[in-house]
Order: sequence, then C-alpha cells, then structure tokens
Amino acid sequence: MINGERSISRPLRWGMVGGGRTGQVGYKHRTGALRDGTYQLVAGAFDLDAERGRDFGVNLGVSADRCYATYQDLVVGETGREDRVDVVSVATPNFTHYAITKALLEAGFHVICEKPLFFTTSECDEIAELAARKGLIVGVTYGFTGHPIVHQMAAMVKKGMLGEIRIVDLQYTHGFNAGDDTNASEAQKWRTDPSKSGPTFVLGDIGTHLYYLSEVVLPHMKVERLLCDRKAFIPTRAPLEDHATVLMHYDNGARGRLWVSSVDAGNMGSQRYRFVGSKASVEWSDSRPDQLIYEVQGEPNRIMHHGMPYLEEESLAIDRMGGLHTEGLGDSWSNIYLWIAEAIDAKMRGDEDFLNTHHYPGIEAGTEGVRWLENCVRSADGGAAWVDFK
Amino acid sequence: MINGERSISRPLRWGMVGGGRTGQVGYKHRTGALRDGTYQLVAGAFDLDAERGRDFGVNLGVSADRCYATYQDLVVGETGREDRVDVVSVATPNFTHYAITKALLEAGFHVICEKPLFFTTSECDEIAELAARKGLIVGVTYGFTGHPIVHQMAAMVKKGMLGEIRIVDLQYTHGFNAGDDTNASEAQKWRTDPSKSGPTFVLGDIGTHLYYLSEVVLPHMKVERLLCDRKAFIPTRAPLEDHATVLMHYDNGARGRLWVSSVDAGNMGSQRYRFVGSKASVEWSDSRPDQLIYEVQGEPNRIMHHGMPYLEEESLAIDRMGGLHTEGLGDSWSNIYLWIAEAIDAKMRGDEDFLNTHHYPGIEAGTEGVRWLENCVRSADGGAAWVDFK
Amino acid sequence: MINGERSISRPLRWGMVGGGRTGQVGYKHRTGALRDGTYQLVAGAFDLDAERGRDFGVNLGVSADRCYATYQDLVVGETGREDRVDVVSVATPNFTHYAITKALLEAGFHVICEKPLFFTTSECDEIAELAARKGLIVGVTYGFTGHPIVHQMAAMVKKGMLGEIRIVDLQYTHGFNAGDDTNASEAQKWRTDPSKSGPTFVLGDIGTHLYYLSEVVLPHMKVERLLCDRKAFIPTRAPLEDHATVLMHYDNGARGRLWVSSVDAGNMGSQRYRFVGSKASVEWSDSRPDQLIYEVQGEPNRIMHHGMPYLEEESLAIDRMGGLHTEGLGDSWSNIYLWIAEAIDAKMRGDEDFLNTHHYPGIEAGTEGVRWLENCVRSADGGAAWVDFK
Amino acid sequence: MINGERSISRPLRWGMVGGGRTGQVGYKHRTGALRDGTYQLVAGAFDLDAERGRDFGVNLGVSADRCYATYQDLVVGETGREDRVDVVSVATPNFTHYAITKALLEAGFHVICEKPLFFTTSECDEIAELAARKGLIVGVTYGFTGHPIVHQMAAMVKKGMLGEIRIVDLQYTHGFNAGDDTNASEAQKWRTDPSKSGPTFVLGDIGTHLYYLSEVVLPHMKVERLLCDRKAFIPTRAPLEDHATVLMHYDNGARGRLWVSSVDAGNMGSQRYRFVGSKASVEWSDSRPDQLIYEVQGEPNRIMHHGMPYLEEESLAIDRMGGLHTEGLGDSWSNIYLWIAEAIDAKMRGDEDFLNTHHYPGIEAGTEGVRWLENCVRSADGGAAWVDFK
Repeated sequence: MINGERSISRPLRWGMVGGGRTGQVGYKHRTGALRDGTYQLVAGAFDLDAERGRDFGVNLGVSADRCYATYQDLVVGETGREDRVDVVSVATPNFTHYAITKALLEAGFHVICEKPLFFTTSECDEIAELAARKGLIVGVTYGFTGHPIVHQMAAMVKKGMLGEIRIVDLQYTHGFNAGDDTNASEAQKWRTDPSKSGPTFVLGDIGTHLYYLSEVVLPHMKVERLLCDRKAFIPTRAPLEDHATVLMHYDNGARGRLWVSSVDAGNMGSQRYRFVGSKASVEWSDSRPDQLIYEVQGEPNRIMHHGMPYLEEESLAIDRMGGLHTEGLGDSWSNIYLWIAEAIDAKMRGDEDFLNTHHYPGIEAGTEGVRWLENCVRSADGGAAWVDFK
Repeated sequence: MINGERSISRPLRWGMVGGGRTGQVGYKHRTGALRDGTYQLVAGAFDLDAERGRDFGVNLGVSADRCYATYQDLVVGETGREDRVDVVSVATPNFTHYAITKALLEAGFHVICEKPLFFTTSECDEIAELAARKGLIVGVTYGFTGHPIVHQMAAMVKKGMLGEIRIVDLQYTHGFNAGDDTNASEAQKWRTDPSKSGPTFVLGDIGTHLYYLSEVVLPHMKVERLLCDRKAFIPTRAPLEDHATVLMHYDNGARGRLWVSSVDAGNMGSQRYRFVGSKASVEWSDSRPDQLIYEVQGEPNRIMHHGMPYLEEESLAIDRMGGLHTEGLGDSWSNIYLWIAEAIDAKMRGDEDFLNTHHYPGIEAGTEGVRWLENCVRSADGGAAWVDFK
Repeated sequence: MINGERSISRPLRWGMVGGGRTGQVGYKHRTGALRDGTYQLVAGAFDLDAERGRDFGVNLGVSADRCYATYQDLVVGETGREDRVDVVSVATPNFTHYAITKALLEAGFHVICEKPLFFTTSECDEIAELAARKGLIVGVTYGFTGHPIVHQMAAMVKKGMLGEIRIVDLQYTHGFNAGDDTNASEAQKWRTDPSKSGPTFVLGDIGTHLYYLSEVVLPHMKVERLLCDRKAFIPTRAPLEDHATVLMHYDNGARGRLWVSSVDAGNMGSQRYRFVGSKASVEWSDSRPDQLIYEVQGEPNRIMHHGMPYLEEESLAIDRMGGLHTEGLGDSWSNIYLWIAEAIDAKMRGDEDFLNTHHYPGIEAGTEGVRWLENCVRSADGGAAWVDFK
Repeated sequence: MINGERSISRPLRWGMVGGGRTGQVGYKHRTGALRDGTYQLVAGAFDLDAERGRDFGVNLGVSADRCYATYQDLVVGETGREDRVDVVSVATPNFTHYAITKALLEAGFHVICEKPLFFTTSECDEIAELAARKGLIVGVTYGFTGHPIVHQMAAMVKKGMLGEIRIVDLQYTHGFNAGDDTNASEAQKWRTDPSKSGPTFVLGDIGTHLYYLSEVVLPHMKVERLLCDRKAFIPTRAPLEDHATVLMHYDNGARGRLWVSSVDAGNMGSQRYRFVGSKASVEWSDSRPDQLIYEVQGEPNRIMHHGMPYLEEESLAIDRMGGLHTEGLGDSWSNIYLWIAEAIDAKMRGDEDFLNTHHYPGIEAGTEGVRWLENCVRSADGGAAWVDFK
C-alpha cells in the first residue's frame, strides 16, 4: 500500500510544457505528480499566451523567471541552472510532441509525454535511439493503467486463473462529439485536423489507452492480423474518424474486438475491458474503478473490490485508499507518475538491473501504440481489409 | 395493458411437436401460450420416446389418444377430427423444422416454429409459397421481442427521439459451452452437428434473436454489406462456430457490430442492445428487462421503467405487470404467442386488412434470419471477407 | 424445474370475486393461476358494475350464466351445480375480505384471498376455525414469495451459510402517492379510508409482503418487541399512514428495521431484503429478481443467478425459465397459486401428512400478517413506543 | 473547476500528529493536503515509536530535526522557529484529540482534527472559546463531504428541486468487524475501548460522517427528537456498539432514519444517502461517487454525472477530474483540506467577511457531531427511548 513515503533518492525537479489554464489535461498531470512529494513543479512553458502562462505558473507556485514563453525558452533557461529541471512533461497537441521531446532530450532532460506519442513509428525509433544515447527516460502518460484493479487483472492472467485467453473485448466510447464542430473549443479543434492530430482522431485519442492496457494485462500475447473499419459521422472530420471498430487475431488464436467512438451519444460508461479465458473472465470499467467482476464459468460471479486482502500482492502494493474507499483517475495517474519517477531515479543512479524489471509506460509502450495506429490506418485505408500486423 | 381478455374469436386448439419432458424450450412455449386462455393444448407428439411423450402429454392435460408417437401420426390423427388442432408448434432440433412444417401446412394446420427457421432461404421461400397457397400462418418464436421495452425502443426510433441512427451494437453471449462437449447433453449435442444444426451454431442459435430484434426496432434500415469472423474455440465444433463477430454497414450509413458466443465464460448478462442516434441512444438488456436507458447527449441519462405512463402507447399497450413489477421472459413469449394467435384468427376470418398492419414474427421474419445466416457464412467461409448482403 | 406437468389430481374449477377490468390486481391472479392448466376459470363476480363484469368475464372465456352480479349471487349460483367451482379468489378491497371469505367457506368453497387478510386477528381466528371445521383451505396471495431466489435465501439460512442471523433489513417503498389524492383513482381512494382499508395503509398494503417474506426466510425467528413510527405526509390520509418505520427485536437477539412508504418520490426499486448473519449476508430485490447477492465477509461478493446448478435444490425445483432468462413477478405468482392448489388438492384427498409439511401462504400466514399490523398500530398509537409483540 | 492554482496567499507550513506508517488514516490526510501545493509538510510527531516516526517523516521529506517524538516536543520545537508550522493535523485516537488540540491552539497553531472531535460538547465549547480567543481555526476532517456530488445535492435542495424534504435515509455499514476482536490490530483495538474511543464506537467512527453530510445537504433542517437503538453483537465491545439504528424527527416534520454498523457482513457499499422531497429524491453513494440518481416522481430516473455542464455551479466549481473520469475519496479530502486552508488564510488575513460565508467543516461542525452522539447515547442508555434533541 502506498502511503507517500519516498521511493526515490530525492524529489525530482519538474517542468511542464503545455497544460495551462485553458487545457483539459494539465491538472491530471499535476494532481498525479504532486501528491506524494516525488515531484516539485519548478518550471514551465504552460501556455501559447506567454503572459497568461506566466500568471498561471506563478499561481501554481513556480517562480516567475522560470515561467517561460516557449519550450525553446525553457530549454535555454533551464540548461544553465544548477537547480535545473530533471524532467519535463509534454501536455501539448499531438503534432508538437516529437519536436518538443527531441529538444528536451537533446538538452538532457527526461521527458514524460502525452499519448499518442508521435505520428510515426520511425519518429518513435529515432527518439528511442536519442533517449538511449543520452541515457534518458521517456515516459508516456497512459493514465488509466495505474489503477490497482488493472494490475489485479494482469496478475490473475499470469497465474492462470482465467485459463488460456480466448477473447479480448475493449471499448472506449463517449458522445461528446456527437454534434458537429461548429462551436468546438480550441482543445477540440486540433484533434480533427490531420496536420495537428496525426493520422487518426479517436483511435489515437482514446483507442491507444485500450490497446496499452490490454498489453499490460496480456503481455504474452501479440496481434498477428487486424482489420479496422473507421468512419467520420460528422463529415468535416474526414479523413479522420470519430468512430472505429477493430478486429484482432492474436498469435495464440484469441480473437479481439475494440470499439472507439466519440459519437456514442450519451454514453458515460467510459471504458469497458473484458478478458475471456477458457476457465473464467474478468471485466472492468474505469467508470467503476473499484470493482473487478471475476466470472468463473459455472460459479456465481464474484465482485472483487480494490484494496481487499483477497487480491493479489501486485494489486495491493499500489493501492492508496484501502478497501472501502474509491480510488479515482487521479490516483491512477499518481501511480503512473510514480513509476516513471522510479525509472528516472534508477537511470540517474545507473541501476539498469532495476530498469530491466521495472514496469512503467515508456518509449516502447508509446512506440507500440503508434505501431498499432499505423496498422489500423493501413487496414482502414485499404477498405477495412485484413492486414498482417507489422 | 393486457389483462387477459380475449382478443380473438375463440381459443385456438393447439398442438406441439417436441418440447417434451427433457427438452429446454418446451415450457417456454407452453407458459407463453397458455396464460391467457388464447390457446388450449389438446394434442402433441412431445417426445422421440413415444411412451414418455404420452405420459408427459397426459400430465399436461392432453387426452392420451391425442398424444402421438410422431408428427406424422399427429397429422394423420388430427386430420380427421371435428375438433382438430388449429395450430401446431414445432419445438424440435433445427434439421427437422422444414419437413415438419411442410407436413403440417400441407395438412392444413397453422404452424409456429422455433428459430432458426430452416437451413436455407430457398426452403423458406418454398414454405412461404405453400403457406400462402394454403392460407395459413407460419409464426416464428423470436421469444425476446415481446417485451414492452423492445416496442418502446421501436416507437422512440420511429418518433425520431434518437435522431438518425448511426451505430447498432448487438451482443448475445454466454459461457455455457466454455468447456468441451465430452459430457454434453442430447439437447446440446445436435447443435454442433452441421447435419442437425445447419450451417451455423451460435449465429443461428442466439444471433438470429439479435438480428430480428434489431429489425423490429429499425424496420427502415437494411444491411448492405457485412463481414463475419467466426471460430470454434472447442475444435470438435468446427466447422460450426462457438464465437462470431459480425460487422455490418447499413444503407443509411450506419455501422453495426454484433457479437455472439457460447464460450464467453461466466457471462450472465445474456443480451445487450444499444442503438445510437445522432441525438440520443437507448440501451436494453434482456437480463434487466424492466429498464431502458435513454441517453440524450448532454443531459443526464434516463432510466425508463416498463409500465410507466411516460412511455409510448405502443409499449404500454402490451404491458402485463405494470410499473413496479418485473416482467420476465415468459411474459415476452406470451405476447409473441398472442400476436401469432391474432394473425391466425385474422387469417381464419379472412381479414387481410388486419394482417397487412399486424406486427408478429412470421415467415418473412424467419426468412430474413436465415438470409442473414447465409450472408454470415458466405463471409466467414471467404476468410472473414466483406460481402454484399443479398 | 417446473415444466407445466400437473402435480394435482385434476384441474381446479376456479372463480374470482373482484379483479375486474378496471382493477390493478386481477390479472396478477389470472396470469398466476392459468399458465399451467392447474386452474380453469369458470365463474366470477368480477365487478361492482354487473354488466361490465359479465362482459369482462365472457371475454375471459367464462360462460355468461356464471358471470354473477355479486359474490352472494355467485355463492347461490354455484352451490347447486355439479361442476361448481372448487375455489374462489377474493381480489377486492380490504374491508370486504372477511365477509366474502366467510360466505364462501360456509358454502363449502376453498378461498384464496388478497392481503392484508382481514382487519383483526380475531376475525382471522374465527375464519381459521371455520375453515378447519369445513375442511377447507384459505390461501393468501403474498405474491412475491414464489420467486426461486426467495427459497434460495431460506435454504441458505437453514444450512447455516450465513451463520447466526443478526440483522434484518426490509424495505418496500415507492412514490406513487407522493402527490395528494385529489385525482386519485377508485383503486387508490379506498386504501386511505380506514373504514375500507382497515387500521393501516402502507403497512398493510406493502409492509405485509416484507414481513411474510422475512418469515419464509427466517422461520426460526420470532419478533419479541417492536416500535412503529408512522406518518401521513399527505394529511388527508391520516389517521392512516403513507410512511412508516418499524424497529424489531427478535428472540435470538437480532435487530430488524423495516421501511414502507408510498411517498418515496421516484423510487422504482420496489423491495429490498437484506439478511445479515455472523458469517455472511444475502441481499435481494424484486426489481432484479434473477439475482441474489451473497456476501461472505472477507471474500469477493458473489452474484448468484436463479436457475444455475450451484443453487440449492429448494430453489431449482421451483424455477421455470432456467439460468439465463429472467423470471418476473408473474412467475412468482404462478408458484404461489400452484402451492395453494396442491394444498387444496391434498385437502380434497384428505392427505394431512402432505399438508403438514407443505409450504404455502395459508391462513396462519395471513393471520401473522394481521397480528404484526396490530402490534405496529399499537406502538404507533402509543407514540412510536416499544411494545411487546403479542 | 479546480486546476491547482493557488487560492490562498502562500502555501501553509503543515505538521502532523499521528498518521504514521502503521496507521490507516494518515495517507488520506497527506494525499488530501499535498496535491495542490496549498500545504507543505514540514514537521510531525508521526508515531508513538519515536524512531519509527522520525524515519517515516524523513521518508516523507521532513527534516529529521522536525520529526518530533511527541506532540509536546512538536509544540516546543516549532514554537521558537521563524518558519514554524502554521497548522497541525491531529490524526490520533479519539481520546487524545482534546489535549493535543488544546496544546496546539495554546501554542498558536491552527488545528485540523479527526472526527469525532472530542468526547463531550463541553470540551468542544471550551476549545471553540479558546480558538476564538486565539484567532485560530479548527477544521474537522469529515472527508466524504468534499465530493462535487454532495454539493450538487445541496444546491438542488436549496433551489427547491426536491420540494419540501420529507424523508432522510442514511446508511454507513460495513462488515470488517463481523468477527470478534481476538486478532484485532492496534488501530482497531482502541476503537472499542470506552476510555480511548469515547462513549461510542460506530456511531462516532462512521455515523458522524452521515450526520455531517446530511447537515451540509439540509442546512435548514434541525433534529427535534431522536431515538437510538444500539447493540454490540460481539459482546466484548459492550458497552460500546457495533450496530445502531437512529430514528430522527426534524423540525419541518421530516422523518429520518440512520443505520451504522461494522458487522454488516460483506457489505462493500460503504455509504448510502437518500433525500426524499415532495417532488423528487436524490440518492448517492460514496462507493459510486461520480453518480447522482435524481428521481422526479412520474418521470424516468435521471443519472447525473459529476463534472457535466448540466450540474449546478456549486458542484462544477469544485470538480477536479471532469465529466467522464471518476473522482475518488482522495479528491474529496483534497477539497476539504483546501477549504480549511482558505479559512486559515482568511483568518491570517483578518478577512472575517470571507469567513462568514465560507463553507468548511469547522469547530461548529465538529461540535454538532459530538452533540448528536450525546443525544444518541442518552436515548440508547434510556432503553432506546425517544429524547428531545438538545
């Protein structure tokens, strides 16, 4: 159980690019990073509007002189300092991830970046090579995978409690874009512009969460073939999609289906994960994160609650609130941020043994997400055709 | 609201083929037919074991001399009688539906048959022609579509409360066949034998329920293309499937996905129907039949209960229990049986005007189910390829 | 599992008093009685409006000459017939139960009566004595206690799966009377008139269901003391109550609390039963009748589904629909009616051994309900004071 | 919406008494206080084991020299410092609250104390007088009342959306003490020792949460009379209770019932709040904190989700995660800690106008909780008798 005791050598000096007052995601980073004293927010280029960004940073407790106008200024300004930031989070639109991450790594900072990581796997590979050369960590904020129940599912699969996995059913749908984009916010507009969002909208925006979480639960399984059928129900979003279905064939013979949509009018269920094995299934939703439904064929369905002693150690170790009390999305983000901090700390200490077995969403996880998107787009553009995963 | 008052000229004299003591489905027919005095069970060939069948029939209140050894005997025995049966239900394995239905129609009896109706659409067309020629009704027991909530959904779609339909999400999965068939019951064994089950297992056994219900709710939409990916996780079931995913493109641009499985270990949710429109969605499950979730984007989700005055008249008219009290699957079957009785009564009275607007699952509904199966199999056998629906 | 085979010597000839076209409860009796061929509806005095009642009866398939204007006419008309009714159901307002039941018993008919049975326990005792003297059965339609899950709970308690029972939590609340009675229907009006409803409104109308079901599940426990706090939120209903809370102390030290209300605005949950033992609890609601939640302290909560092989034999024996398919309130009523028929049949056969062990809601159950109401009223009238149960 | 921007003049220097490594509640304080940079943890007397406490404090980032052996040492050590703590949280067993709070206030520190605040209202009054005299704030960690949905309920009641409140139904039950205390942890043992827990166990431990939350939602209503029936199902806990039922009569004629128990075997539902008005009801549970069920009689039940634009401004203003994403108990605590910080900041600035309208759980809220306990005990000790609330 996590009680806030520090698991790293010293607090990390932390900066942010993006995540300003008008954005949606900045607070998720901050509430994830700051609750345990693992990170100290000391610098930022929070906003395209430099003055607003500085005012915002000061309100967050950052010195005015470390509230920069641009990420380039941040790189310059921080580079010379004795107390320079250790790590910088990138909470900006997709099309800026690559350049900002590259500049930060070249300047010697660890990076924590939003998903989808970059536009192409070749960009990912280039950044992976750069990070390796510089001895730096790149973390990716797949923020839903820090929930204790996610790791309960992974542990149960690993122990064989489900038997051989047969069916993977993944869904992340909502209806916030059911209407057209006439009055879309800035935070929404760039997501349907291919030059800013990349080759996908909902597949990248929410689908990568599903795919990464399935990798965490099923690390032993690989997709061999997939088929992606995508569509823009609001025509102005084409060629990007606001709805997609993906079928997947895994190397062990399992069958997967995945649904992402932002036109699923009224759906507040967020995400639904169901993993079906030859003996039992588990089902979990981020909208009811405290509960795991464990279904052994022929027995009563069991509802497992986070934090209860009957869970696996892998789950209990990362619990924060304990049995009866709901952990929310912020608690999940705080675990993600903690695990990335532990990776950075190990990297700084040169502890590769630790890194070899340490679980956190890093550059490989980010790359795999982009690879999955490339395969989806290739299938969709081929007329929703089956393609070999590569 | 239904209160048991007779809506037809006189009670129908009713017989059954199959549905004996050891079967699973016979009581669903009887409890559906008998609760309102619309049908009187007066004859039957209930069992392959003639003696057991006669004993069973007598316990149901049928005269011993009208408990027949075979359906052929029933045809012969009833044909001569003044008080001969008006209509006979066929609750036998799939491979016998065609021959029994044909024999009954030729002898002048109306027929109520289990789904999937027959093996091929050409059989369906032949029977449709025969029934038309003889002036007889063929009803099909799509037993889930009698729930008041199903007709609430249809009425809401018709009134435009959902806007243009965009997404159709259909699921009927359970795990009763998650293990292999070593100890399968007789009632299970024939379902995975292509010579007895026909060209499909779960697609026909449970998928046709999903497809017909979607037709009831969305009568204005047609499937244009589909793709079916099927698999037997228990290899002895091949070439039939215990798991299948179907993607559908509708003529209005809507996208559908459908999942059927009998290896979805532990799933007791039975069926899930979600219809997403440009303004709102509705979601319903047979496992919670009293509730409809109505989700207008941007408003709180609404939970509608069967029998409440705020529902549409089409739903209230067929309610039996009223507001606070759950209607079960038996109540749904009783509506199906009632509607078929009303069709038979109209046919006997020669009231074609009534028949032209009367809703009930008849030969066309049965034929469409078989047609959908043919398209699914064509796609699956082509390597889960897209096929034009024909 | 019930499949419709007859468990009694011959179908019972059945009549009804009340339950006509405009009432709410008549169809519950008919759909409960008629689905299995155990009862044949052959006579009735369905309505205070004799003509409407006759028209209604004829529509139900009753001969016009056996559609009587009054219950007195029914007694007279049926008495002389060879094919006279065996049993008559009383589905009329509370204040008529006693006189009608008495007249029917005196004429030699078995009786099935709505709850609350009569106004006083002395009336109950008198009728019990009369029924015993005449060798007749009086059944009481506690219609919710026929659900297979109710008897699963009873079996689990009996086996000790819950340990010693500590807490009994009972709730039946709805909001249909949240507004005043200005536009109340006839079916509602009499319920708040003490001369017609008796000494209680919701305590009798819905509270007796809770109390009887708790007796079925906990036959070994007796209430020793209780306290009832009642109130009419709509003042015109006083001195009767539209809301009441009852605290109960049981002879084994258990504590009970019970809540009934018809001003619980918007509540569609109907009933909630929770039985807490030293080892485990069970919770059930009539609004989700297929599920029992079984909660062993320290283990994951289990959701049991009706009809599944892991249930106790007492529950499986009375299942009608089977595992995946919801049984509704009508199915519960049909079990109640069946058990009463079996009692009548045994009485007619003189099989007192059978009657000694046969479970059905009879005159004792009806009497206990009235006794409980008397104690509640005594406490409430004493200023919501504790009273010894007597 | 809260995004982490500072709403107070400067971060508060914060200390803790208790809340060490082996306790259950310390992390709830820290995760609540630290996520927004409003508090900086700089001192503590975390543990009765001084060495363990110092090690723990250092791991939390506190200087070793400010990790004190006792609260007395903390008072002495901090008093002289320029950078002395502004505020100290008391997360220790009940019987120490009074002395520690008194010592801290006398030394000039603001205090944040666990509930139940003290043993008696006279202690509360004394401390209130002391705090007023010293110009200091006493906050009380009623940690569940920071959820945005709680304030949605309060706003809806205030706007009249429920009509006149009629029924208050409160429940906080779990089964963690269903077994006896043979192997009870230290954190559990003191709770059933009257010299350490005070005059109640579950009434104070969890019942005060229910009562305070009801005050937040219904500030205009006062309890006039109550009746408390309490019991120790595990006899060694007597005279304290592990189960209690409280009936309450409010000054507007409303009726309340409240249930607390720690022997409700298997119950993981935590808390349930239902407020019934003449027009509508709302129902909320901490175990599903993102949802409010809003039930207008005669309309479909509505499920409201936190963070959605259709909510009241009072709720949206304190939301942290936004629409689709669950806020957990930690987020609720963070709002409570924020509101107390704002009170302290205003007190330091001398801004009594702000304080006059600012909502936070302060000494009055703590006192009312103790007053309610006194009334409960008076009733229970009088034989579960009705008592006038005083």
